[in-house]
Amino acid sequence: MTAMNRQVRLRSRPTGIPQADHFDLAEAPLGPLAEGRFRVCNAYLSVDPAMRGWVSAVGNYSKPVGIGEVMRAFAVGRVVESRHPDYAVGERLVGMFGWQEFADADGKDVIRRVREDDQPLSTQLGVLGMNGVTALLGLTLVGAPQPGETVVVSTAAGSVGATVGQVAKILGCRTVGIAGGAAKVQLCREEFGYGAAIDYKAAPDLSAAVAAACPAGVDVYFDNTAGPVSDAVLPHLAQGARVVVCGTAAVAHWDPPPTGPRVERHLLVKRARMQGFLYFDHVAQADAAIERLAGWVREGRLRYREEILDGLEQAPDAIAGLYRGENLGKRLIRVGPAEA
Amino acid sequence: MTAMNRQVRLRSRPTGIPQADHFDLAEAPLGPLAEGRFRVCNAYLSVDPAMRGWVSAVGNYSKPVGIGEVMRAFAVGRVVESRHPDYAVGERLVGMFGWQEFADADGKDVIRRVREDDQPLSTQLGVLGMNGVTALLGLTLVGAPQPGETVVVSTAAGSVGATVGQVAKILGCRTVGIAGGAAKVQLCREEFGYGAAIDYKAAPDLSAAVAAACPAGVDVYFDNTAGPVSDAVLPHLAQGARVVVCGTAAVAHWDPPPTGPRVERHLLVKRARMQGFLYFDHVAQADAAIERLAGWVREGRLRYREEILDGLEQAPDAIAGLYRGENLGKRLIRVGPAEA
Repeated sequence: MTAMNRQVRLRSRPTGIPQADHFDLAEAPLGPLAEGRFRVCNAYLSVDPAMRGWVSAVGNYSKPVGIGEVMRAFAVGRVVESRHPDYAVGERLVGMFGWQEFADADGKDVIRRVREDDQPLSTQLGVLGMNGVTALLGLTLVGAPQPGETVVVSTAAGSVGATVGQVAKILGCRTVGIAGGAAKVQLCREEFGYGAAIDYKAAPDLSAAVAAACPAGVDVYFDNTAGPVSDAVLPHLAQGARVVVCGTAAVAHWDPPPTGPRVERHLLVKRARMQGFLYFDHVAQADAAIERLAGWVREGRLRYREEILDGLEQAPDAIAGLYRGENLGKRLIRVGPAEA
Repeated sequence: MTAMNRQVRLRSRPTGIPQADHFDLAEAPLGPLAEGRFRVCNAYLSVDPAMRGWVSAVGNYSKPVGIGEVMRAFAVGRVVESRHPDYAVGERLVGMFGWQEFADADGKDVIRRVREDDQPLSTQLGVLGMNGVTALLGLTLVGAPQPGETVVVSTAAGSVGATVGQVAKILGCRTVGIAGGAAKVQLCREEFGYGAAIDYKAAPDLSAAVAAACPAGVDVYFDNTAGPVSDAVLPHLAQGARVVVCGTAAVAHWDPPPTGPRVERHLLVKRARMQGFLYFDHVAQADAAIERLAGWVREGRLRYREEILDGLEQAPDAIAGLYRGENLGKRLIRVGPAEA
């Protein structure tokens, strides 16, 4: 009997947020491993808002996933077979291994070797993975926060946002989180130590709430949403403010682009800067960033939440669920034994 | 008989672009000069798009001009009387001397002493003044153009824009100018040496015209307009592009803010930066910048156009005229003898 590999493949191209029926659950035989390749048994698959862009036909930073191809995804797993000199059986790797049980790789898809053996493997896809690195490097390289400054974070309880808020606090900033719903706002206050937290779904006047929470203005705005939350924050930028454009979770469709209040006057009058940040430009700095993040995790200064879904069949609806805001913490899919 | 000073004062507060009837032409007696002050006889008064903001009640970078006050303006003139140890009769100064024939000053309003005695005094308000310094420092400090890159300029034939285009060319960039009307486009091509020039009023599809003129994308966009011109440029940013937000000439009213296509996706996907630049933050670097600009003017590498209106009575309608796009070149008002 041939061993089989279960996979989630892109069935059709979404125009906005990918829904469950844009994906297929399928099986493919696991053939013999080719020379120069190695096989990874995935333990956890990542579910990220950015995956919306990876399947989009609208101009993006990477070629869109093809119809019928395995869904592109970060994953962490263990090498179970190798015909590659650099990767030995038993090694634990993070890579773009896709939404599948097994990945045949040649090294180009590898992001890093797991070094933090004292931490749960799942953290490699969240606080010690793309999300944590994005938070730390986006905040420090683009946001450049100074002690005493006010840092505002959208999707403040999310995997990136919660890390941004805590790192900004560690760096000596006042932090203000914006999140949707009482549970997330409570997490912001009690778990992630935000100085203030605003429920954008409950605030009668979000702009006034931001102004009240930021009496000296907003020095750094770490933006994961765009949309109405940003429209409420940007009028309150302090002079010389920095806006880290990290995600656009609040915008369902970019084709055609939605309209919103023009930002030029804020940027000009406040001599502010608005700049995009993308993890993939900074992979060379990821190890150093993760070392720093892991240190804070060990000291108990950096907390994280995970929401682990069991089984590959949970994957097709998982991205849409992120955009529905239903997860509390980093969303992962467990496909192998818990600690591969 | 008491000597009189003719002045243009703000009569009422505009909500958008100031029109002629927002100003009054008035006279005030020239009293005796107080100790610690000196009197400047203005030769040229400046007319700048930024003056729209100076009379606006909407949040800005400076306190708005009060009703009944002399209109704030750059001017260049000669000291005709002095009871101040640092300013001697006969000195030529650039300062915020206002739309009036004479200004009693105490030194705080002085921007610089005129050093370029070989150049017409009028240039102190244009290519060797705020416009030139804004162009050079905005382009280099925020735009950071590299040789071989493509620099796109809006209001490309204007006092700031024309200098940006020529400096970018001197720095080794390919330049693309966007201007309104055949006369300005011709100036861009024949006088200011743009590699390509686009008439936004005549282009059937401005976005397509920008794409055609910038096959490798837009590395630097020096934006003096915001509005539809920017909407046509931003989709064509190259990876790592820089947008210098220098003016918003295309937006008539900021209260309430107009809407336009959201920019976040461009900034994120292209890892681009959009940043406001304001001359007043960089006054300390103005002398060095003007020295560089004057060098290029003397070498014939940096050209400029001026449109000189004669007499203070031309002032009230002069800002509105800028926004009507009727001027070709830096707009000035001559109030004293041509070379005071």
